Amino acid sequence: MTKKLPDKTVERLSQYRRALLNYLASGKHHIFSHEIANLLHITAVQVRRDIMLIGYTGTLRQGYDVKELIDIIGKIIDSRDGQKVAVVGIGNLGRAIMGYFSGKRTKLNIVAAFDTNPEKVNKIYAGIPCYHNEMLKDIIKNEGISIAVISVPGEYAEKVAEDLILAGIKGIINFSPKPLNVPSHVYLQEFDIVTMLEKVAYFVKKA
Amino acid sequence: MTKKLPDKTVERLSQYRRALLNYLASGKHHIFSHEIANLLHITAVQVRRDIMLIGYTGTLRQGYDVKELIDIIGKIIDSRDGQKVAVVGIGNLGRAIMGYFSGKRTKLNIVAAFDTNPEKVNKIYAGIPCYHNEMLKDIIKNEGISIAVISVPGEYAEKVAEDLILAGIKGIINFSPKPLNVPSHVYLQEFDIVTMLEKVAYFVKKA
Repeated sequence: MTKKLPDKTVERLSQYRRALLNYLASGKHHIFSHEIANLLHITAVQVRRDIMLIGYTGTLRQGYDVKELIDIIGKIIDSRDGQKVAVVGIGNLGRAIMGYFSGKRTKLNIVAAFDTNPEKVNKIYAGIPCYHNEMLKDIIKNEGISIAVISVPGEYAEKVAEDLILAGIKGIINFSPKPLNVPSHVYLQEFDIVTMLEKVAYFVKKA
Repeated sequence: MTKKLPDKTVERLSQYRRALLNYLASGKHHIFSHEIANLLHITAVQVRRDIMLIGYTGTLRQGYDVKELIDIIGKIIDSRDGQKVAVVGIGNLGRAIMGYFSGKRTKLNIVAAFDTNPEKVNKIYAGIPCYHNEMLKDIIKNEGISIAVISVPGEYAEKVAEDLILAGIKGIINFSPKPLNVPSHVYLQEFDIVTMLEKVAYFVKKA
């Protein structure tokens, strides 16, 4: 499969796998599309369409084989050798992200954290060493890190992103409140808590 | 305006406002659609369509009046009297969210935090009092809180959501890794860091 799947399909495949791993842990080995749909609050048609798109089919009587489906999703969305991730900015958010991942079985490994605060540098957080930002380029190159999470305050985000891209980072998740500009060979995922909350607030307010 | 705008439009309006407030702070009073588009990395056509949808027009020569546009977006997406928000789960993520908001001028006020850890209960975080989860229903009703952020570990998310909905919460942002089921009168926004990272990883990996 050389052509890239749509963004939203990849998102759902990741969610299917997470739901299927839970389901498997509860001792069940087969699942129907409508059951996956229920777990994720989407339609069964959507589930069947996504799974057909990755070339898998279940049986009418038993549905999908859970283990097979987990494996196939892994082959599509994971990198064979895993990918290394760095987190820049070890405030509450940075630490939350590292905690989220620690102990999770995933092909994504957070292998380095960066901060400028001397009280944080050279410490270990959730099993991950924290280096000074000055080391960013060297560590990223030497470790072969391809993905970075930016969780620094807005005013530092642009500089950090520049350094990351110069060091060879290919994908960025920006948790800072400052939107970033990246060259087209870098995949950027923006995230902003204020916008998320304002959206919910809009749908909640009385008309 | 009684009909609700689409999800994505509301998201962009929130982002326009944030960008416009920055722009205004830099001393500029007029802006063209292509300039807003550049700030947010979208197309000028999209910007013009969204702004037309809320009934505002600029002038060919000067573009949009920044202050007017900020006001109009506010009238559309804000609630007149503001809305109150609670954060349940004061781990790293909960604290990051509270820190994000403190000092921001917004119609959304985080007025209460909840946790079960006795070391956190009755303390103040970023100016916000932390109560025991046992107080959740009373505080939410008495304070008139309409929106809640769930930042507890996955295994507690469902119970917390039930309690929140019983207490009258109308909108939930779920930061826990467990997808939630809510009745249709409650607006749910799911968020999952692992899926976000897996998506970036997919687009970054070599084909």
